[in-house]
Amino acid sequence: MCELLGMSANVPTDICFSFTGLVQRGGKTGPHKDGWGIAFYEGKGCRVFQDPQASVDSQLAELVRTFPIKSNLVISHIRKANRGKVDLKNTHPFVRELWGFYWTFAHNGQLKGVKKEPLKDFAPVGTTDSEYAFCWVLSELKKKFKTRPKNEIQLSQEIRKLLSKLGKKGVSNILISDSKYLYAYCSTKLVYITRHAPFGEAKLIDADLSIDFSKHTNPKDVVTVLATSPLTQNEIWTQFLPGEFQVWKEGKQWQRFSP
Amino acid sequence: MCELLGMSANVPTDICFSFTGLVQRGGKTGPHKDGWGIAFYEGKGCRVFQDPQASVDSQLAELVRTFPIKSNLVISHIRKANRGKVDLKNTHPFVRELWGFYWTFAHNGQLKGVKKEPLKDFAPVGTTDSEYAFCWVLSELKKKFKTRPKNEIQLSQEIRKLLSKLGKKGVSNILISDSKYLYAYCSTKLVYITRHAPFGEAKLIDADLSIDFSKHTNPKDVVTVLATSPLTQNEIWTQFLPGEFQVWKEGKQWQRFSP
Repeated sequence: MCELLGMSANVPTDICFSFTGLVQRGGKTGPHKDGWGIAFYEGKGCRVFQDPQASVDSQLAELVRTFPIKSNLVISHIRKANRGKVDLKNTHPFVRELWGFYWTFAHNGQLKGVKKEPLKDFAPVGTTDSEYAFCWVLSELKKKFKTRPKNEIQLSQEIRKLLSKLGKKGVSNILISDSKYLYAYCSTKLVYITRHAPFGEAKLIDADLSIDFSKHTNPKDVVTVLATSPLTQNEIWTQFLPGEFQVWKEGKQWQRFSP
Repeated sequence: MCELLGMSANVPTDICFSFTGLVQRGGKTGPHKDGWGIAFYEGKGCRVFQDPQASVDSQLAELVRTFPIKSNLVISHIRKANRGKVDLKNTHPFVRELWGFYWTFAHNGQLKGVKKEPLKDFAPVGTTDSEYAFCWVLSELKKKFKTRPKNEIQLSQEIRKLLSKLGKKGVSNILISDSKYLYAYCSTKLVYITRHAPFGEAKLIDADLSIDFSKHTNPKDVVTVLATSPLTQNEIWTQFLPGEFQVWKEGKQWQRFSP
């Protein structure tokens, strides 16, 4: 299995604090030592760092942890290989372009039989179930909508339908984004926390590190962090229900679809 | 205009020395201060670093310059914006997946009227002529071949035809790769050097830095570096002819098509 981390914010925000917690699980406080990756959106642009090494030992992860890249939307993943060997090409998040947007995808779980689903216009480069599933989701979206639908709720509903279908094939917690929205599907475990004024202090579970967010924020900032399990020990994280699908925009819950 | 850098090698090789020369042209010895990017292939996997900042001031470029990422195939670019504003989404190299391979593309020049060419299945995310041209090349390749042709010469010939067509629209020096081959098209300026045993010393033009390759190589290593203009002052670089197309594999010239 793997661990996921996502962020949606209404101002460009760095994810150094949460990422520091996550990377510990990549070989130190957790067994997810088969690579890691992180995608930062800047407008429609997207920057991805990936490494097939354990995140806790990775020089590149050290850079990402200490270099405050500011973004409104982030998707990150640390990997414990099940299907597909340890290899750069099998490292999440995966990226594809659809309708002139960069889509990114990170997945926690295993999907039985997903490779029997037909693909069109998107093909996996690596050998994981996850990348195949991503290609299938995009294939289906492109089949359904020739261009990006103007009705964003209709698009969300379609994504939900596809991710729910994946959810029936096994464990499948998913973060997916098109630069505008962060779509999150929970099959077994996904939690979130929304931080806004008045900001307080937070303390990591996986490392001896605290941060006083009031010193790093403005009163209008809204920042939501999603993860497969809570990253801080002194805050209350909200659990997704199994089968729940949520859409986040600029730090706020934009849509919530019950299971 | 911009500057290009490419590498093809028969063993995983770092590009720290050449990249150090290139980044000086991003704001110090050259005016190409509107961003930079570099793609490293590792097998079929691909790692891309991009920054819309001047390479000479970029903390990320500093990491790439000093962190010896080893690869058999590299494409890099530093940008002087002509069309399309300074923005991450307009930063080369661009990446798309076709036939289960990651294709990367970097371009030097300006292409008049390229945006009138029809696209299918690939769309630009940013606003540059270059990304549009890349999407057009992939659209045409996909139209012609449903899957990757087994005959690699046929594929090379098709790529050459498409790049030559672009070459008629203005200045267009191009590096493009599918992880297996490095394809290079020269419209006005492109040079290369192949280094093999006995290895000697090289001295950069743009920085006070020398390297003795004999201390960093094995006798069987073959490494070719391509660039828009020579990076070293004491070696002989070979110029492409205008309209020439070359294909490189594992450090060696695999195909050469005269203008």
